[in-house]
Amino acid sequence: MSTRSIVSIREMIAAHPSAPPVDADVLARCIEECFRCEATCTSCADASLGDDDIADLVRCIRDCLDCADVCASTGRILTRQGAVVAFLRGTLEVCAEACRVCAEECEKHAAHHEHCRLSAEECRRCEDVCNEVLRLLD
Amino acid sequence: MSTRSIVSIREMIAAHPSAPPVDADVLARCIEECFRCEATCTSCADASLGDDDIADLVRCIRDCLDCADVCASTGRILTRQGAVVAFLRGTLEVCAEACRVCAEECEKHAAHHEHCRLSAEECRRCEDVCNEVLRLLD
Amino acid sequence: MSTRSIVSIREMIAAHPSAPPVDADVLARCIEECFRCEATCTSCADASLGDDDIADLVRCIRDCLDCADVCASTGRILTRQGAVVAFLRGTLEVCAEACRVCAEECEKHAAHHEHCRLSAEECRRCEDVCNEVLRLLD
Amino acid sequence: MSTRSIVSIREMIAAHPSAPPVDADVLARCIEECFRCEATCTSCADASLGDDDIADLVRCIRDCLDCADVCASTGRILTRQGAVVAFLRGTLEVCAEACRVCAEECEKHAAHHEHCRLSAEECRRCEDVCNEVLRLLD
Repeated sequence: MSTRSIVSIREMIAAHPSAPPVDADVLARCIEECFRCEATCTSCADASLGDDDIADLVRCIRDCLDCADVCASTGRILTRQGAVVAFLRGTLEVCAEACRVCAEECEKHAAHHEHCRLSAEECRRCEDVCNEVLRLLD
Repeated sequence: MSTRSIVSIREMIAAHPSAPPVDADVLARCIEECFRCEATCTSCADASLGDDDIADLVRCIRDCLDCADVCASTGRILTRQGAVVAFLRGTLEVCAEACRVCAEECEKHAAHHEHCRLSAEECRRCEDVCNEVLRLLD
Repeated sequence: MSTRSIVSIREMIAAHPSAPPVDADVLARCIEECFRCEATCTSCADASLGDDDIADLVRCIRDCLDCADVCASTGRILTRQGAVVAFLRGTLEVCAEACRVCAEECEKHAAHHEHCRLSAEECRRCEDVCNEVLRLLD
Repeated sequence: MSTRSIVSIREMIAAHPSAPPVDADVLARCIEECFRCEATCTSCADASLGDDDIADLVRCIRDCLDCADVCASTGRILTRQGAVVAFLRGTLEVCAEACRVCAEECEKHAAHHEHCRLSAEECRRCEDVCNEVLRLLD
């Protein structure tokens, strides 16, 4: 295992020449959740493809793939400094909505599929912190 | 701050219906480092765009953007189960190479730019764990 | 050069088991412009990195990188069938806004940089067709 | 429909301050096929999710998602100028391999699914032109 230290987004924000548009701790958490949600949704979609009841999980797979793409794009955009606030707001609103839609679908399968339960939990975390950044942008 | 628990890739692998191609702990670390390296390199590229000596950082910016794209793609592919081993090997080799090239360039600027020092550290972590998965695939 | 025929998005939509949410010709053009705009903005950002007046093009580079990420995500989401209309609308609105912002910035440099002129032209095309799909979704 | 002209990758390469690493026409075709293959594979995966025999198409869906991610990353990397040749070679080899694997799987379903036939055709086109660029890099 590597002996190097883990590098956090929070440290990267501190090392950036520009000040972040909102509180750095909240922004860092939002970026981290976006990338984590991308990974979690990618995994949930793939796990669903391997389940016996795949035919019941088609909506879940599509929502997970959409959510992963939106989270990836949002994570990158939030990482860059200087986007106009109106565009940042729209991006965060769409991301929160993608997470909400995906969480609602995954929650339907959470009792039978642990990967859906976990994915829904992560989508809700990402939705929450996107909304938290949105409130700070007001 | 959200009271929900953080969802880890390690838990997602455990909830997947298929067994992973290599040790689950190592695979989980590799996926996490790929997404973290995507975020770190995206941030380093953007920080470099804001630095006064931007003209000296063009190579760094391009390497960071390439590395971010390769890490994103590799993170997603590793998250899916069942890819043929030869393809996984090629993907991991290219990712390790992208990280190595980017780390070498960022290390040149590490003394003057903390974001380059952090980005190089993260690229080396990602390179290390890609190589660790490669050894397990042998 | 390959003797195989070019495969169009329009053909893929026709071969999909579900009917598209809007007119197939318009949807196909929108998907094509999203991916083309991703490529054009990626190229404009890189060309700007190689220009002598890079310091004047930082805003352009960031807008191009943001626009490329949003277009990529939007192109993929539009390609999938069955997303809820409210989410599709939000996605298209953000994409049209990213294209508009990027076009406005690139237009400032169009007289001196052919890559900015071309990129602005493509962003406006993508913005137009995103708005056209939005009108059809009403 | 927009009256603006279509912007081609070939024009973007001509407007770039650096000379491309290989013949500009071949490079432009390769970048275009990468983005087209990303779109085609994304569409084939989604069409397969809507087919009655989805359980027989799981391998196809996973290969298409992997191929789309590799093509997206390769298209962006080829669009940037100045990557070291060894890294470009590795990237193109992995992309050609992803296309070959995906084409082989899609070809198995081509008789029954037009979207698989089209996707296989596009994967082979992308594989061919990746190999063509590889030969020019020698």
